[in-house]
Amino acid sequence: MTDSAVTTNDKIQAAFFRLRSNKAFELFVIGIIIFSAVTIGIRTYEMPPLLVDVVRVLDGLITLIFLVEICIRFIGEPNKKRFFYSAWNVFDTLIVVVSLIPIEDSELALIGRLVRIFRVLRMVSIIPELRMLLNSLVKAMPQLGYVMLMMFIIFYIYAAVGSTFFAEINPDLWGDIALSLLTLFRVMTFEDWTDVMYETMEVYGFSWIFYLSFIFFTAFAFLNMIIGIVVNVLEEEHQRERDELAQASGEPTLRDLQAQLHELKTLIERRG
Amino acid sequence: MTDSAVTTNDKIQAAFFRLRSNKAFELFVIGIIIFSAVTIGIRTYEMPPLLVDVVRVLDGLITLIFLVEICIRFIGEPNKKRFFYSAWNVFDTLIVVVSLIPIEDSELALIGRLVRIFRVLRMVSIIPELRMLLNSLVKAMPQLGYVMLMMFIIFYIYAAVGSTFFAEINPDLWGDIALSLLTLFRVMTFEDWTDVMYETMEVYGFSWIFYLSFIFFTAFAFLNMIIGIVVNVLEEEHQRERDELAQASGEPTLRDLQAQLHELKTLIERRG
Amino acid sequence: MTDSAVTTNDKIQAAFFRLRSNKAFELFVIGIIIFSAVTIGIRTYEMPPLLVDVVRVLDGLITLIFLVEICIRFIGEPNKKRFFYSAWNVFDTLIVVVSLIPIEDSELALIGRLVRIFRVLRMVSIIPELRMLLNSLVKAMPQLGYVMLMMFIIFYIYAAVGSTFFAEINPDLWGDIALSLLTLFRVMTFEDWTDVMYETMEVYGFSWIFYLSFIFFTAFAFLNMIIGIVVNVLEEEHQRERDELAQASGEPTLRDLQAQLHELKTLIERRG
Amino acid sequence: MTDSAVTTNDKIQAAFFRLRSNKAFELFVIGIIIFSAVTIGIRTYEMPPLLVDVVRVLDGLITLIFLVEICIRFIGEPNKKRFFYSAWNVFDTLIVVVSLIPIEDSELALIGRLVRIFRVLRMVSIIPELRMLLNSLVKAMPQLGYVMLMMFIIFYIYAAVGSTFFAEINPDLWGDIALSLLTLFRVMTFEDWTDVMYETMEVYGFSWIFYLSFIFFTAFAFLNMIIGIVVNVLEEEHQRERDELAQASGEPTLRDLQAQLHELKTLIERRG
Repeated sequence: MTDSAVTTNDKIQAAFFRLRSNKAFELFVIGIIIFSAVTIGIRTYEMPPLLVDVVRVLDGLITLIFLVEICIRFIGEPNKKRFFYSAWNVFDTLIVVVSLIPIEDSELALIGRLVRIFRVLRMVSIIPELRMLLNSLVKAMPQLGYVMLMMFIIFYIYAAVGSTFFAEINPDLWGDIALSLLTLFRVMTFEDWTDVMYETMEVYGFSWIFYLSFIFFTAFAFLNMIIGIVVNVLEEEHQRERDELAQASGEPTLRDLQAQLHELKTLIERRG
Repeated sequence: MTDSAVTTNDKIQAAFFRLRSNKAFELFVIGIIIFSAVTIGIRTYEMPPLLVDVVRVLDGLITLIFLVEICIRFIGEPNKKRFFYSAWNVFDTLIVVVSLIPIEDSELALIGRLVRIFRVLRMVSIIPELRMLLNSLVKAMPQLGYVMLMMFIIFYIYAAVGSTFFAEINPDLWGDIALSLLTLFRVMTFEDWTDVMYETMEVYGFSWIFYLSFIFFTAFAFLNMIIGIVVNVLEEEHQRERDELAQASGEPTLRDLQAQLHELKTLIERRG
Repeated sequence: MTDSAVTTNDKIQAAFFRLRSNKAFELFVIGIIIFSAVTIGIRTYEMPPLLVDVVRVLDGLITLIFLVEICIRFIGEPNKKRFFYSAWNVFDTLIVVVSLIPIEDSELALIGRLVRIFRVLRMVSIIPELRMLLNSLVKAMPQLGYVMLMMFIIFYIYAAVGSTFFAEINPDLWGDIALSLLTLFRVMTFEDWTDVMYETMEVYGFSWIFYLSFIFFTAFAFLNMIIGIVVNVLEEEHQRERDELAQASGEPTLRDLQAQLHELKTLIERRG
Repeated sequence: MTDSAVTTNDKIQAAFFRLRSNKAFELFVIGIIIFSAVTIGIRTYEMPPLLVDVVRVLDGLITLIFLVEICIRFIGEPNKKRFFYSAWNVFDTLIVVVSLIPIEDSELALIGRLVRIFRVLRMVSIIPELRMLLNSLVKAMPQLGYVMLMMFIIFYIYAAVGSTFFAEINPDLWGDIALSLLTLFRVMTFEDWTDVMYETMEVYGFSWIFYLSFIFFTAFAFLNMIIGIVVNVLEEEHQRERDELAQASGEPTLRDLQAQLHELKTLIERRG
């Protein structure tokens, strides 16, 4: 490759980088995503044949624009390898690539529709504030991990006990451990839980203990989870605040004053 | 306009300003609003013809009092232009003006009744504490904006998926994207959500994943929202507290002490 | 009254004061209250005639013990006037006095039973921790006052709108403003709210806006209420903490240091 | 016992202690517990006779492994007496011992199955983070004790009133105080509470006061409980933070500065 070719490449890359950093470009892409979401919404209504065709054409157009956009992002990236380090870029590329595959098979057509729906998620990859929000959600997950594990153990034990005792009373609700877990989730959301309880109370009069203790444990665990998050968030907030104070403010620390006093003492001793 | 006219105008304005700032006047207006609310309540019951007439007369009287009150406020305002800068004044005037229009048409009569109902909202415009409460609600809105947008994206994707797969199972619940959004809101409030789920699980055995993941995401987003507000409120509280401390207290800052130490050092150096 | 009589009175009062401050006496009264609660519970079951008589005798005994206890408290009180300043003492006395009235009339017998039930509340008046808990609840009320008023205004407006439009659709739910308020409370608790909504949506297709906006407003107001309490509680906590720090700790303040520095400066200037 | 025997004993104990502290050993035990949980889950499904036998053999194997594990822990314990001081060790031993008893009786077989289910709880005894979580739950209990007592008093009074007035309306819901307590718990979870209310409102028109006040009181008490926990957790958090700051940071305190100033003053006075 000659030098001039390299320079041309660099120039193109720089031009595309400027383009993808452009606010208007971002707004245009957001507009296209919203438009894409609207077409998905329209498709769920009964449509005259003409509109079906229009939507199909529009859909192709959107796919094309997304393809061009991804290319611009890729060419504009100074370090090509780093492009695929970002999970969002991988997600965007995948969505566009799958949209490009022409599918006629009815089974696969459904997947095609799903992929089109997930294009709405591109909103999150484009708007930085939403990306941050999602990141904070993901970051909070491991902190909640043990509470979730604890909750799953509680669920599992109650489900095993439930399907041992109540399976014959109502096989639809307590037939096996998977059904029991679903039924217990329903009890946790208080959704017609008394119907479930009254049914088993007819056979086992004391089964209300099963339900009440379960509600108590899960409510308590949930409470713990909330408090865990709140305390965590507040702590981080405090930490950030303290760091900011320490950095930004020109306010002297006690240590500074101590140093000054020491200096003063030396001065007096020398001169005195 | 002669000088004496201006003076008279000013005197009238000042007199009306005193009147509208009067506590008794405020209490009287609050009394009228409560009375207006009571007549609205009475109207929803079956009434003998005589009482209907009495209520109609009372209603006219209330409208008249409100009209006089608005006029007093307007005349009492030193700067006439600023009067309509306040959204509450515009709201009050609108309510009174629409109440004045005599409507016989049954269609419009309904609007007339609605306007009479919204007169109860004048309570908020009169009592400063309620106005502050509403302002704080409005102020919190933009902070929650991105969480709301995120939640809407989640809702939209699930609604699109729901109406793609479940539309044929129950068109009343999943027929189009608008119905699906409403059904998902219902699922979020846990209102008979298992009925919705069991119905689709008969066709798609794994559709419980759809519901459980949806509940998980929305509950999580909601949690985030609450925490967002709490942290925000606490931060503002802290800021206010710090500002108060800094202003009111005569307590010297570390910077003051530093200055004093520096002064001392200079003194010693000069004298030493 | 002779001096010796006064002395005897004082001695009796002191003796009774010691008795009512006695831990064993308190535990005995708590035991009686629990026993009284148990007899109330037993009465709700079908009983053989013999047991009915036993319970009646026990009930008389409990009333007698309570009467004696109140007398002890009253005699033990150094300042007789102050005895009825405490709302709890008035409550205790009232409960005992009404229990003493022999009632045969079936209508009044019901009131007699109610009074016996409310004897359980004496638990709160006896155990100081519960009394404190209730006091803190009562103290929180005025802080929540404006939020409650705001919520009532929201409820009232929606109830008025609801009974204007939906009264003919379902008179049982929206017939008048009182029924509408009850229905809206039900909607707020998410109790079969979709049934209420679907019914009105058949006539007014857009009535989902009514329900969703109502849920949004009340949920938001409720959130505000919680935050209000939390912030308040935290603030008080902080205040108490600061006061404790200021009082107990011998840690010098910045002001102390400033004074010391000033003194030092004067010293140097004089000696320098 | 000869010296060499003691030494051998010590060596064995040390070897077993190393084994039980081994990370791989812990992971192996966790693996066995998960496997045990899976077999419990499988048992709730219809199984071909062959699989039933396989599961029975596996179950025996798991019991054996658990027995060996407990022995290793016990032998590895330096102080044999302290082993049974830990409630978790007692729990683990009990679970294994009961699993060992061969039971054929159908009544007892059920208990056998229950014990097998509770083996899943061994997860909590093995993973330290879960044990800490449970401990924090247990530790929070007494703090909540008085709120729980208050709530129970509220429940009891409402249940007594409910079964006094509504027992004849619906004996299934209000027949005696135990049923009434259960019905009130249902009302607190908002589970079809309006059905309960509408039924009694047909006889006692004002019984909505009963339900609304009950919901208000319990919601309020619950709120108080949450706030109590949050404040408590935050306070502990603050305390820990302060302690950390005081210990770790080399930052001088105001008292240090004061001492330094005093020293300076003495110096000047001496030299001046």
